[in-house]
Amino acid sequence: MSGRQRVVIVGGGFGGLAAARALRRAPVDVTLIDRRNYHLFQPLLYQVATGELSPANIASPLRGILRRQKNCRVLMDEVTAIDVQEKLVHAAGVTLPYDSLIVAAGARHSYFGRDDWEPSAPGLKSIEDATEIRKRILFAFEAAERSDDAEAIKVWLTFVIVGAGPTGVEMAGAISEIAHHTLKRDFRKINPSDAHIILIEAAAHPLGVYPEDLAVKARKSLERLQVVVRTHTKVTNVADGFVEVESGGAAERIATHTVVWAAGVAASPLGRKLAEATGCSLDRAGRVQVALDLSIAGRPNLFVIGDLANFSHQDGKPLPGLAPVAMQQGQYVAKLIQDRLKGRESKPFHYKDRGSMAVIGRYSAVALVGKRQFSGFRAWLIWVFIHLMQITQFRNRLLVLMQWGWSFFTRDRAARLITHYRESDGHDDRPSQ
Amino acid sequence: MSGRQRVVIVGGGFGGLAAARALRRAPVDVTLIDRRNYHLFQPLLYQVATGELSPANIASPLRGILRRQKNCRVLMDEVTAIDVQEKLVHAAGVTLPYDSLIVAAGARHSYFGRDDWEPSAPGLKSIEDATEIRKRILFAFEAAERSDDAEAIKVWLTFVIVGAGPTGVEMAGAISEIAHHTLKRDFRKINPSDAHIILIEAAAHPLGVYPEDLAVKARKSLERLQVVVRTHTKVTNVADGFVEVESGGAAERIATHTVVWAAGVAASPLGRKLAEATGCSLDRAGRVQVALDLSIAGRPNLFVIGDLANFSHQDGKPLPGLAPVAMQQGQYVAKLIQDRLKGRESKPFHYKDRGSMAVIGRYSAVALVGKRQFSGFRAWLIWVFIHLMQITQFRNRLLVLMQWGWSFFTRDRAARLITHYRESDGHDDRPSQ
Repeated sequence: MSGRQRVVIVGGGFGGLAAARALRRAPVDVTLIDRRNYHLFQPLLYQVATGELSPANIASPLRGILRRQKNCRVLMDEVTAIDVQEKLVHAAGVTLPYDSLIVAAGARHSYFGRDDWEPSAPGLKSIEDATEIRKRILFAFEAAERSDDAEAIKVWLTFVIVGAGPTGVEMAGAISEIAHHTLKRDFRKINPSDAHIILIEAAAHPLGVYPEDLAVKARKSLERLQVVVRTHTKVTNVADGFVEVESGGAAERIATHTVVWAAGVAASPLGRKLAEATGCSLDRAGRVQVALDLSIAGRPNLFVIGDLANFSHQDGKPLPGLAPVAMQQGQYVAKLIQDRLKGRESKPFHYKDRGSMAVIGRYSAVALVGKRQFSGFRAWLIWVFIHLMQITQFRNRLLVLMQWGWSFFTRDRAARLITHYRESDGHDDRPSQ
Repeated sequence: MSGRQRVVIVGGGFGGLAAARALRRAPVDVTLIDRRNYHLFQPLLYQVATGELSPANIASPLRGILRRQKNCRVLMDEVTAIDVQEKLVHAAGVTLPYDSLIVAAGARHSYFGRDDWEPSAPGLKSIEDATEIRKRILFAFEAAERSDDAEAIKVWLTFVIVGAGPTGVEMAGAISEIAHHTLKRDFRKINPSDAHIILIEAAAHPLGVYPEDLAVKARKSLERLQVVVRTHTKVTNVADGFVEVESGGAAERIATHTVVWAAGVAASPLGRKLAEATGCSLDRAGRVQVALDLSIAGRPNLFVIGDLANFSHQDGKPLPGLAPVAMQQGQYVAKLIQDRLKGRESKPFHYKDRGSMAVIGRYSAVALVGKRQFSGFRAWLIWVFIHLMQITQFRNRLLVLMQWGWSFFTRDRAARLITHYRESDGHDDRPSQ
């Protein structure tokens, strides 16, 4: 395998995986390194957090996906530093020399400098996040059922979702379905439909990136699901047992044990390390400003793609953190590397926007395909079709289809397990024993 | 609901759930309390530990199972004490008065007084155990792939299973299949088939409870799968990085990072609490000695069933810790409670042994049905049929069938995810960084 150009790809998300696959016929040696052993289909993560799907349904082992691609090896390890002088990637267990490097390390959620909020308001980026949120949502109903105090029950049955982007909207809709349908007849004392589901958004509309009339439709759909949508509202504090918000100058405290954080994005800390090493600039979210060919300042062989990249050459705004952006960027860099090997020039990267969509609760969605807008059941069908087709492995596609079909007819959610539960999780609200 | 007899059931395993269901038409108020929110189909837990099935495939929410049973409520809570004078069950969040109490709190694994071995040799009793073991097995191959040291690779690829009962045999067979089939073409540097899989057993045969010729067949099947079966061998020490064994007077140290504990059973600590409160006697494993009607010494309304009970009236030996024993005992107590309400006498409990079976790797098993013995593929088919029929929910039955069918043809295991991984999990073996 020696003598050939070595391409190292950091991260096996949509961008990194697309780059690796697009290099399958190139005369290069590819190493894909990720601290996970699987590729995660993030758009369906909220369905794991709400007990609809199992983690394995949306996570495919990277080795399995790349098994037949002989020019690619996969390493599970965490990258700790990048030495741009010596062209080395340092990880906890290995050191990898590279000729070309593609950094696709993604992003996590941002608490806008208030990381102390995280324990009380977990975000939704990983399998562990999803099972943690699933545990909290389901446990809240259990704790309410075993309480005798009306006020305590009300607090347990209050769910706050911060941020009304696609993830926040999807979570709010799914929690509403759990309360009004899935758990409807499961309890003897409480009525799960008494749940208060509050979606908090600082901007004027939910799904603010969509055209206003779609955003208005989204709000109406959410309200029909009995989600309280509070726009123009800012979170000022989160702690164990409450969220404090401010709206039109008035402050308010909402008592709750279950807060889901779906606001703000912070790029991987690898961005900062790259900036220190190369002098490239970062935006406010920690994303790396990339050149027209997705390389970074003065390092033509070092590319940054996906959620970690800020590409604002197209219309002044950075491209959104969506799977299609990352995938097109991965494919672009793979082609550029091959073009260079052949001595060919490459055109600048150009993102082809094929549309975007978000689900709102049960069998309702909004979708934007080119200039055409869809909403309601029709948008949901488009969403189902596109997501099913994109799931990485055929087996998972079948399993997801079966589980969606089942839920469609029974409104059941089989994966509503409380795992990794510690008795201390529920202590705060209890009288001393 | 007042005025009716209150039956409290502690534990939603096979015994507790069977008791609750058998009381569905009785004029009593049933409360089932469990610290989990689901019933776990333990016989398939090893398939979660080896990436074949997802946790949700073998865990069904108790509320879902008992939704339609109007005389039964479910509480998720951990029982902390039982007050036999006042007839109260104390849990972390509630206190429950009872007229009849059925304790079905089960068992965990026992380290024979060496609980310090547990971190290095986790057992297999819960979903969390299973995902922990799955993580360790899969991570071992990842760590081997990223190592450059032949000796370190050999240690990572050594897997030790302690105890050759059904769980130990099933684990050894499944790890062999992972090494020889599932991961066959997944790595570029290591050959997963180089794995050493060592099954350690203190007795003369694996599956010692079976007739000797079946045990001999089981050993041959295991050896065909390249599992090293070391009988007459005792574990004398387990720590991070090794297992020490003794065999025929000779001591030996086996270097490994992956040890699975499948030996020994320790009854729930509730047994000891019952003994302190009632003076009932415990056996060496901490199980409660029960009377002919499964009640305990002088407490005709307090029953102990399943793995927590020692019932040795039938042939002098305690009944084995199997699902059918627990289920029959649960049904027996439910009937006894109803008989008493009607003023009828009950016959003593009698266990009807319908057979037992264990899987040995790929499409091979041993089964004992009455006096008839089966082995190989035929026994495996019986095993598949019986287990599929016993899985609690129809949806899960379909999902499991589909995944088994898929694996049958592709030898793939979709759920091979490493979750809840911390970088420190792999540190011990690494050179300092």
